[in-house]
Amino acid sequence: MRGHEGADFGPAVIDIADREDERIAAFRDVRERDLTRSGRFIAEGAVVLDQILASRRFRLVALLVLRERLAGLAPRLAALPADTPVYRVERELFDRIAGFPVHRGVMALAEPVEPAAAADLDAALAATVAARGCVVVACGLSNHDNMGATFRNAAAFGAGAVILDRRACDPLYRKAIRVSVGTVFTVPFARWGGAVSIADRLAGLGFECVALSPGAPEPLRALRDRRARALFLGAEGEGLEGDVIARCRPVRIEMASGLDSLNVATSAALVLHHLAWPEQP
Amino acid sequence: MRGHEGADFGPAVIDIADREDERIAAFRDVRERDLTRSGRFIAEGAVVLDQILASRRFRLVALLVLRERLAGLAPRLAALPADTPVYRVERELFDRIAGFPVHRGVMALAEPVEPAAAADLDAALAATVAARGCVVVACGLSNHDNMGATFRNAAAFGAGAVILDRRACDPLYRKAIRVSVGTVFTVPFARWGGAVSIADRLAGLGFECVALSPGAPEPLRALRDRRARALFLGAEGEGLEGDVIARCRPVRIEMASGLDSLNVATSAALVLHHLAWPEQP
Repeated sequence: MRGHEGADFGPAVIDIADREDERIAAFRDVRERDLTRSGRFIAEGAVVLDQILASRRFRLVALLVLRERLAGLAPRLAALPADTPVYRVERELFDRIAGFPVHRGVMALAEPVEPAAAADLDAALAATVAARGCVVVACGLSNHDNMGATFRNAAAFGAGAVILDRRACDPLYRKAIRVSVGTVFTVPFARWGGAVSIADRLAGLGFECVALSPGAPEPLRALRDRRARALFLGAEGEGLEGDVIARCRPVRIEMASGLDSLNVATSAALVLHHLAWPEQP
Repeated sequence: MRGHEGADFGPAVIDIADREDERIAAFRDVRERDLTRSGRFIAEGAVVLDQILASRRFRLVALLVLRERLAGLAPRLAALPADTPVYRVERELFDRIAGFPVHRGVMALAEPVEPAAAADLDAALAATVAARGCVVVACGLSNHDNMGATFRNAAAFGAGAVILDRRACDPLYRKAIRVSVGTVFTVPFARWGGAVSIADRLAGLGFECVALSPGAPEPLRALRDRRARALFLGAEGEGLEGDVIARCRPVRIEMASGLDSLNVATSAALVLHHLAWPEQP
């Protein structure tokens, strides 16, 4: 059952024939479970696998691969440690293990490498201050689609990092990873605690804290000078709390009259795009 | 089984006790079906119901209402024609009819009123040209979330209308309605045919056709003058076809190096926001 696939292959390839095999327990019924409570997470597809392999902030624990996909993945697996198990299964069993049809044929079990993540975040914050760039602070975001989209937009417009408050949902949840197009693996992030203390800490590091607030007197385009900024995003529906806004420079996104409804990740995109390419005064 | 609820109520209230009752066939298993092929559609919730009732472009065909929600809906139902059936059901039956747990307790069966829709679209296009505003042209959008989000962003930034090409998915699909926050009922739209002929027709009406294209020489901020514009959005993944871009002024959204990935509805938000509030030159 266990064997190497020849010289072009680093890790152990293990054939799995039984859904209840304990070695693949972490891959079972991933749709129903919130795996991230264990600190580990499941990510799908070869593109995301590449991002995990390229990041020193994450460690691949094991792979579940469709039999016919294995040959195509061989080059990128060659560099894996020999003790990283690669579980090979047939299509029908793959779907029964996952609990839903997985079209990409690759599922990675991975975990954060905490010291590297902390070091990378520190470096990213310092670099962002130096470059007068922007970081995103997600406070209370509860929807995994919005979390993933926020990371995607942060990456698109070069935000240096994402800080989460204690209430924000997990970017390493399967749905968030997918919507992020894997950018949760490329944009450094950390969970820090309460939003007020996050604002104080970022201000101490040199960031101007900016809060999106529909009732703000200043429109987004009032932010014309280039400086390091932290963009605070509030929970879907409720927005940011008053004591957080009080520590920030509030700005509004101008909308058609009668509407103040915009998706939170879309709002982030508008602000990040504006801050990345401010108009000339 | 059939009776009026007293003087404060226009329509007939009909108690339904059987999931297989033919009168509620259109509400059955709505999750699995693409009802819109029949020209009719299902929308959920009181807010969306209000939007349908307020629009002359849509007609309410029937309502399915949770027993305990009926009293709260009475004021808005009083104005309904007496021959609009309101089907009243218990919670447990409601969920079994719909095929999933419906939390809002109101499902509306409705249909477009074609002459009003065509007249409103003509008026909206003329008003948009006069106001130097913007319309959105969705070509080949295949994802209902993206379609709904595109309408939401069109509404947020005051776009006058949305034109669909023949390949774009249906904005009146349940998921699109929900993501749009009901704006599919407030922003006039129509399906016109091929994207190239749409560009020709809009140009003839006085619109400058603008296409989002990652390789365009001009960035978004090059659009500084205020004039009537039609923003062409392409399919997820493939983008717009070459012969469509050739009829448009291509612009790019500037992103962090190495990335040209942005959700299509988010891209629309960036352009519409920019065009609604162009910076001073």
